Amino acid sequence: MVERTAQDIRRRNRFDTLRRVYAAPAPVSRQDIAAATGLSFATVANLAAELLEAEVLMEAGHEESGGGRPRARLAVNADRGVLLGIDIAETGIQAQLFDLALTVLRSVELPLPRAEVEPADVVDTVVAGVEQLLAATGTPTARVLGAGVSVPGLVEREGGVSAFSPYWSWRDVPLRALLAERLGMPLYLDNPLKASTVAEMWFGAGRDIDDLVVVTLRAGVGAGMAIDGALYRGATNSAGEWGHTCLALDGRECRCGKRGCVEAYVSTAGVARTLAEVSPDSPLLRARDESAVVEAVARAAAEGDPAAVETITRTARYLGVALAGLFNLFNPQVLVVGGLLADRLDEPLLRQTRDAVTRHAAPQPPRAVRLQRSTVPDNPVSLGAATFALEGFLDDRDTFGPVKAGRRAARAARTGTARQPGGSPARAQPPRHHA
Amino acid sequence: MVERTAQDIRRRNRFDTLRRVYAAPAPVSRQDIAAATGLSFATVANLAAELLEAEVLMEAGHEESGGGRPRARLAVNADRGVLLGIDIAETGIQAQLFDLALTVLRSVELPLPRAEVEPADVVDTVVAGVEQLLAATGTPTARVLGAGVSVPGLVEREGGVSAFSPYWSWRDVPLRALLAERLGMPLYLDNPLKASTVAEMWFGAGRDIDDLVVVTLRAGVGAGMAIDGALYRGATNSAGEWGHTCLALDGRECRCGKRGCVEAYVSTAGVARTLAEVSPDSPLLRARDESAVVEAVARAAAEGDPAAVETITRTARYLGVALAGLFNLFNPQVLVVGGLLADRLDEPLLRQTRDAVTRHAAPQPPRAVRLQRSTVPDNPVSLGAATFALEGFLDDRDTFGPVKAGRRAARAARTGTARQPGGSPARAQPPRHHA
Repeated sequence: MVERTAQDIRRRNRFDTLRRVYAAPAPVSRQDIAAATGLSFATVANLAAELLEAEVLMEAGHEESGGGRPRARLAVNADRGVLLGIDIAETGIQAQLFDLALTVLRSVELPLPRAEVEPADVVDTVVAGVEQLLAATGTPTARVLGAGVSVPGLVEREGGVSAFSPYWSWRDVPLRALLAERLGMPLYLDNPLKASTVAEMWFGAGRDIDDLVVVTLRAGVGAGMAIDGALYRGATNSAGEWGHTCLALDGRECRCGKRGCVEAYVSTAGVARTLAEVSPDSPLLRARDESAVVEAVARAAAEGDPAAVETITRTARYLGVALAGLFNLFNPQVLVVGGLLADRLDEPLLRQTRDAVTRHAAPQPPRAVRLQRSTVPDNPVSLGAATFALEGFLDDRDTFGPVKAGRRAARAARTGTARQPGGSPARAQPPRHHA
Repeated sequence: MVERTAQDIRRRNRFDTLRRVYAAPAPVSRQDIAAATGLSFATVANLAAELLEAEVLMEAGHEESGGGRPRARLAVNADRGVLLGIDIAETGIQAQLFDLALTVLRSVELPLPRAEVEPADVVDTVVAGVEQLLAATGTPTARVLGAGVSVPGLVEREGGVSAFSPYWSWRDVPLRALLAERLGMPLYLDNPLKASTVAEMWFGAGRDIDDLVVVTLRAGVGAGMAIDGALYRGATNSAGEWGHTCLALDGRECRCGKRGCVEAYVSTAGVARTLAEVSPDSPLLRARDESAVVEAVARAAAEGDPAAVETITRTARYLGVALAGLFNLFNPQVLVVGGLLADRLDEPLLRQTRDAVTRHAAPQPPRAVRLQRSTVPDNPVSLGAATFALEGFLDDRDTFGPVKAGRRAARAARTGTARQPGGSPARAQPPRHHA
């Protein structure tokens, strides 16, 4: 993502400034932000003024500065409005309502009605989830600054189209337009790999690091890349489809129909298959589904079950060899591993994986391989989807553009509350409709 | 590579402007450049003025513009100075002298003295090559604007250090500093993957496309990535080490000591090995070395030799599966394949490889896979190395910075030739020493 105009630079610097405020455990001064971003104090002060004016930030006390004027601290104005993050998965959806500080206010999970779902089923379920969240919290639609929606597969982001789904036999479904007919709010569509990566950039390892690869290991497997602090999308937003990279020529059959894919080894199904190879009669295989097998393996390994221990060892080897390829290609500062496999198998898996990566990385003196588990709390997909909505809100001309002056004038005419943080529904303008 | 300041933008726009002049088959107008780059006419005019002032560009005739004022055409001022590109390979070096239009003026190839070369051997050989080129063309050192040096392996570019060599048992050799003691010119060190990619960006597929992956297939195998028109280097300049990505878990032994690496299948040695598997007694295996085996396979396949045809078919399958992984991860606009294998096996290899990539790309409707052979003429490594020197010259503060004014004044005082293109040694300032 190359910035080519002064406006692009301003946008990027605005994001960086705000990311620092989100990343900090407590309110921060403009000086702190300047130090952390490398921007000049004047630039930070200018951006902070704009973000205060838009009520995205608010002042939150002062810090001493060794005899000089006390420095004002800045925090996110959590009450400025709400954001929605929606994670559409194979068997159901999770919808979460966030304040502007990206704190979860409420969650709802709804199953999808059947195995072979139609677009209308997904739309109905998402709308039901959003309506439940807003009703339960008494939130008027006008307070929703935006909703991010994650749908698996190939997404044409700008058009808001689900181009291909790995689960359902649909193609080129204009999901954003279908949702827009029912939900009066700005909508942003992307896929779970991109959402997880953005969540990591704002709230995980990416808070301190600009070049990282984020690998997700669950039923599906994939990667997201942040390059110089920006999400890398590729020519058609399908970069990071790592799960069907060949790890073992003529190896295991993958559900995609090909052989030897990474996903056939290091997904939930891959772990179950490895266990079946290690111990075809293992009682752990009787768990209700493949995710449950992974959980059972984790528990059994902790108790020393040899088949479970061996399953983790083999999985670490597969994963290490596959991740070494990502290290060699991208040369990231850090590689972050998340998803059910990483969460459940955790250090026993990661420790052995680190060893395998070090052994298999490019033929050069092994350097420190920084491989760590994701620290993003809760569901990174819905959090990342909400972050897309936050980014969209920050990109919106109405938030910082010429409309601002008109809004300021109208507000001043009303009550003179212009400088008081804490948005009320009456003050929030209906957001511009994107879909 | 994110531009963060107005100066960065100016630098990037200067590169883009100049790339368009280099890419055009004939002199181009400012209007053409504006149309091709997306920059405003005013910006292009401004940058062109600066490049004319620095004598990097020159005016080259006019074009009619439908009744209005005729438009001046711009061309690279080839005589502004010379550049050197040096390709250090396993058994010898190639050094090339270029004019500023990157036309080869003269080449020299010198063998390295022995198999296990020392840094001093490389330095001596490079210095000998440079001295031969300058002597044969009567070029004073002061006319050399810069020399790019490509050395295989891991290069710490900013420090000019060869950190790791795949061929020689050296580590952390300060090659640039060693060369600088002997050569009085700005020096730029990088590796052949990066050099080939930069050559492709300026003179190949990258002339029209900003997102591409460039794969090199010869004794070694690797990839280079251009992202949004900028070379992607990774955290420590080692991105693109694709040759030792695992293609076949527990597969062929690789010379790196691991098993199943891409390089064990689609390098010159890999092709020879495949032929030996197809037909252990093939007379083609008696060629003098592995490069000669590849050439023999190409000739024999053209004549219908079944073992050669089968060798290409298998190689295409290995390559297709491996390249599908790159397509899935990077989602480039185009993937360019170069190096001896692509040059010799050419369309018979590429056609079957395209089919294999399409079959093995991510589980989504197969889209048009743009896979093409490199069109960079001659040796892309030495050309790319010289391009690094060109980029360094364009980046040099002395070329466009405050020194410029002083140089202009001195020049005006001398002869008043300020506006006449065509540099003479007397006019060229000794370049600032970088090493």
